[in-house]
Parts: sequence; structure tokens; C-alpha cells
Amino acid sequence: RFSSQVQKATLIPGDGIGPEIAAAVQKIFAVAKVPVEWEVVDVTPVKYPDGKYGIPQSALESMNRNKVGLKGPLMTPIGKGHRSLNLALRKELNLYANVRPCRTLEGYPTLYNNVDVVTIRENTEGEYSGIEHEIVDGVVQSIKLITEEASRRVAEFAFKFAKEQNRKKVTAVHKANIMRMSDGLFLSCCREAAARFPDVKFEEKYLDTVCLNMVQDPSMYDVLVMPNLYGDILSDMCAGLVGGLGLTPSGNIGMNGALFESVHGTAPDIAGKDLANPTALLLSAVMMLHHMGLSKYGEKIERACLDVIKEGKHRTGDLGGKAKCSEFTNEICSKLQ
Amino acid sequence: RFSSQVQKATLIPGDGIGPEIAAAVQKIFAVAKVPVEWEVVDVTPVKYPDGKYGIPQSALESMNRNKVGLKGPLMTPIGKGHRSLNLALRKELNLYANVRPCRTLEGYPTLYNNVDVVTIRENTEGEYSGIEHEIVDGVVQSIKLITEEASRRVAEFAFKFAKEQNRKKVTAVHKANIMRMSDGLFLSCCREAAARFPDVKFEEKYLDTVCLNMVQDPSMYDVLVMPNLYGDILSDMCAGLVGGLGLTPSGNIGMNGALFESVHGTAPDIAGKDLANPTALLLSAVMMLHHMGLSKYGEKIERACLDVIKEGKHRTGDLGGKAKCSEFTNEICSKLQ
Ligand SMILES: CC(C)[C@H](C(=O)O)[C@@H](O)C(=O)O
Ligand SMILES: CC(C)[C@H](C(=O)O)[C@@H](O)C(=O)O
Repeated sequence: RFSSQVQKATLIPGDGIGPEIAAAVQKIFAVAKVPVEWEVVDVTPVKYPDGKYGIPQSALESMNRNKVGLKGPLMTPIGKGHRSLNLALRKELNLYANVRPCRTLEGYPTLYNNVDVVTIRENTEGEYSGIEHEIVDGVVQSIKLITEEASRRVAEFAFKFAKEQNRKKVTAVHKANIMRMSDGLFLSCCREAAARFPDVKFEEKYLDTVCLNMVQDPSMYDVLVMPNLYGDILSDMCAGLVGGLGLTPSGNIGMNGALFESVHGTAPDIAGKDLANPTALLLSAVMMLHHMGLSKYGEKIERACLDVIKEGKHRTGDLGGKAKCSEFTNEICSKLQ
Repeated sequence: RFSSQVQKATLIPGDGIGPEIAAAVQKIFAVAKVPVEWEVVDVTPVKYPDGKYGIPQSALESMNRNKVGLKGPLMTPIGKGHRSLNLALRKELNLYANVRPCRTLEGYPTLYNNVDVVTIRENTEGEYSGIEHEIVDGVVQSIKLITEEASRRVAEFAFKFAKEQNRKKVTAVHKANIMRMSDGLFLSCCREAAARFPDVKFEEKYLDTVCLNMVQDPSMYDVLVMPNLYGDILSDMCAGLVGGLGLTPSGNIGMNGALFESVHGTAPDIAGKDLANPTALLLSAVMMLHHMGLSKYGEKIERACLDVIKEGKHRTGDLGGKAKCSEFTNEICSKLQ
């Protein structure tokens, strides 16, 4: 008999609740007979030649080999010699577009019932350039770096995404009234991309205006594309509208690979207690399946997960329920069997 | 008979709906017998020696003389040779702290009924430094400038404000995990100020976290202090929670003067039609009265304004009512008589 070719994917379970929610995803994938073989990698920081600690080479090699991965939350080591591992992965693998869909969950009402937006965040530069100087004592500058290359490719990505997903509109979010040159460059790249996608509506909005509108009427927005920091802010805000970071997936897409991750914290207070909600990581894994051409599996798993949340009997504590992580997971599995 | 000494204040009515709402404030002040004499100034841009257009010297002189002013919305002239007049005023007068209180209005329910926060925004530097370069073709940098001097004075201001207003907590909002040096410096100035005000609670939060929490439970926050751009974003978002920029006042406070302004737009579509809501400008004028030591008048006017909104019969169109600007204004006046 014919079976789909098994594909490999890197799995970084992460710290805190990471291992539990990663195990939940692995179980659900097994039950759904997803043709993905996990290559579990350790990312415990190792000492680099420059004396700083960073991601082990083996983890990067796994990602470079498999071109696709799933990642739980990572602790950021404390102290000056450490880089944020989350950010390091995005940068080292050149994952230029950070995609964060955010949708009201059926049956889980918050103040908002009509959220359906996708923030697409430039993921390699901007305010995250890491370039900072103390000019003289007490005077510091941080450099926001905007390049035409990075702006173009993320703008192009946003329009392609909108078109493929049958979305109606792309909004470029900016403060080009203040940062005329940097956000101005970003904006002009968005305009150029817009011209290449005449069937997707395009609009430009100030970041402050978008924040104001979003809390009043999220249905005003659809796909949003923006520089790095603005995406950090707006995606968290949107997650807040639908119930928090435990529910929203994300993907970091690059030319040579893609890493999907839950962007909530490691939740050390509940780690190891079978209390965590694996939804964000599971829905990130679903995004990964779409990316791998395995949408058939992705859709089934997503439906099962959303149904369990909707039915309400097996919700985890963060959703006001009493179910353990394993109970929630088993309920999804039984829907898939 | 004794009457309070009349004080002078500069009035910049502004563009679009500016003159109507400024007239409303003037009328209400007259009826409330506020001992303030307005010096109305024109800020139509004039050509500076460098060829750029800017605020006329006479307007700046009026502000420097009176040390206090009220300002309606100003159109930002289009074209590269123009500076934003709103920003120019903040900078030229060295108005270092931008104070934006945001409170749920009684009787005007939105999705939130427990908003009571004040954002205090550094108002002179940060991402608004205006320093930008094109390094090579297609590579632009914008400089975020953080100084110890400006960070200290706004941090100090925030704690003093919290203490005077009987507020419980100051939250410093930052991204020092990313901009370690610049936001790090800002944060360390906040910590130093916190140490000088041991009876005000202090906490530090990431900007993305605050955005997420704020849409879920605004009662988590009280007074918030932060660099320029973060304040721009957060204050608009908070305004969105209580009904929009037409309802929220603001003040720009400096060492040598203070300018209070409504931060909504000029609303050219309804300008001159007696349809605008003067609340934001009126409540800004109330902030001005507190600043001038005329709290007695400020409190009466605020009460009258909030009562008219609460009673609901004379709301303007933006609040779902049918009242004209003049009817709303007259209703406030009749409460004051
Ligand atoms: C962990 C942190 C460095 C990161 C960021 O600022 O991008 C996080 O907030 C995110 O949104 O993924
Ligand atoms: C008009 C604009 C330049 C301004 C800003 O960005 O500060 C406005 O949004 C504000 O909040 O006062």
C-alpha cells in the first residue's frame, strides 16, 4: 500500500512547561498518524569562542537539515553574556517573517467575538538590530535598522500570504510621520508589493491608530505587516483580545527553513504538574503541517483541538477549566481516532 | 470686593474642529467665572531662515510669557519641508512629560468599565529624536536617543505625580530585553526614582506584556511611565478602551511651562458643522486649571461635563447621541450657572 513519504522535523521541547506540551503534540501527531518524524534536539546553551553562551551548533544543523521545526518556550538566561535564544534562532536561521494568526475561539467568549487578524512581523532587523552605543556618559543610542531588502521580502511575503489564504486586505503599520526615513522606506516597499498584488486591498495606518482601532473594533483589520517591534506589540495585544498567548500560534518563515513556536513563557510555577495548556504549541504545529504540504492532517488536528475547547468540558486551568494537560490531550486524541 | 487674580493663558484653537471646540471651552470658562484671560494666538506656519516652515515666533513668545496654554488639534502640513507642529511645540518649549489620564466614563459603557490609568510619556527624545541616515542605498538607520537627564526627570515626575494624586503604583514600561542599553538606562532611572518614593509601589513590565494585560484587565495598571514611542502607542490604546481620543485629555509639562491639548485629529469632515465633541479639549482645560492652582474651578467644570455625558440626553454624535456641539456646551453651562 502507498503511504505518504515520512518527513523529518526538528523538535525543540524547550524549558519549563515546554516538555509537557511538546509531549502532548507528539502524542496527538502519533494518533493522527501524521507522517512526520521528530528529531528532538537539545538547545542548552554552550560557550561560543567569543566567551558568550549560545545555541549549540548541533541544533542549528538539525534545523538546516530538516528545514522545518517546532519549538516550545525557552528560558532567557540571565546575565550580560547571554543572548536571547528565541531571538538567536530567528536570526541565525534568517527567519525573516514572523506570522501570528489570531482568531476568536468558538465557544470561548472574551470581550471580543470578531477577531480574525494575522500580524506579519519583520523578524530580522528594525529595533532588534542589537546595535547600541553609549555616546557619552548618560547618553545612549539604539539603532533601528531598516533595509530595503528585508522590507521588500516581508512585504512581498505578506501579500503572497494574503492572496493564498484568501484574505481581503493588507494593512501596513508604521510611524513614518515620525521616522520618516526608516518607516518611510518600509512603507514604500509595502506600496511596491501592493502594486504587484492588485487584487489584495492595501492600506497604510499609524501604529497608534491601529492600537486604538483594534481594541474598539478588531474586524477593521485582516492581515497586518510591520517592522519588528511593532509586530511584537501588536501580536501580543491581539493575543490578549482572544484569550492570551496560550492560545495563539506563530511561525517564523525564512528562505531556507521555518520554525513554528508557541510564544508564551516557560511558566515555571506550573511546570511539571500536568497543568499547562498545549494549544499554542499544537496550533503552531498545525501551521507547520500546512507549511509542509500536510494540510489534510493539520486541518483534522486543528478541528479536534478547537472542538475540545468549544465543548468546554476539558478545558485547562488558564481557560477556567479543571482538566489536566493530559486530559485535554487525550480528549483531542479520542476525536482523532 | 476681592476676586482671585486673573491669570493669562495662551489659547491655540487649531485647525478643523479646533475653533468650535475652543469656543466651547471659552464659553464654559466664562460661565464658570474662571479667572483666566485667554491670549488667542495664531500658529499658521511661517517660513524660517532655513527655508522650512514652522511655528511663528509670536506663538512661542506667548507661551513663554504665560507659561501655560491650551491647544486644539493642528493639521500637519504635507510635504518634506514641514515639521509636525504638534511635536515642534513639545520640543521648542521643552515639555518633557506627556501626561494622559484615561478613565472609564460613568454612564458611557464600553467593553471595559474599570479603566483608570495615567500614561506618562517621555516627550522630548527616544524614537522621536528625528535623527536618521541612509547609510548606503537601501539601508536606513533611525536613532533612538535615551539620556539619563531626560529619563530621570520624567521618572521623577511620574513618582511625584503618583504621590500627589494618591495613586498606588508606577509601572515602568520597557523593552530592555531587546534594547538593553537604551531602555536599560531608562529603567535604571526609574529604579532610582522609585527608591526616592518608597511609599509608591513600583514595578517593571515589558511593553508587549502591558499591551496584552491592558486589553484583558486594565485594573492591573495605575500610573505608567515610559519612553516616547511606547507612550504614543499605549495612550492611544487606553483611549480606545474608554471610547476614543475625543474623550481623553492630555498635558505636556515642562520646567518652564505647560501646554494642555486634545490629541484627536482635526476631523475636517465635520469641521464647521457644530457636530464636534469638545470633551477632550475641555478636560485638557480642566487639567490646566489644576496645574494653575485653580482646582476649584476645574473640579466644577469636570463634574458638569461628566454629568452631561452620564445623563445621556445631550451626547454628541461620536457618543451615539444627536446633540450639536453647542447643545452639549449649553447643557454644561446650565449646570454651572
Ligand atoms: C522573548 C522576546 C525576546 C520576544 C520578542 O521580543 O520578540 C517575545 O516577546 C516574542 O514576541 O516572541
Ligand atoms: C500627531 C503625532 C505626531 C503625535 C505623536 O506621534 O506623538 C500623536 O500621535 C500624539 O500622540 O500626540
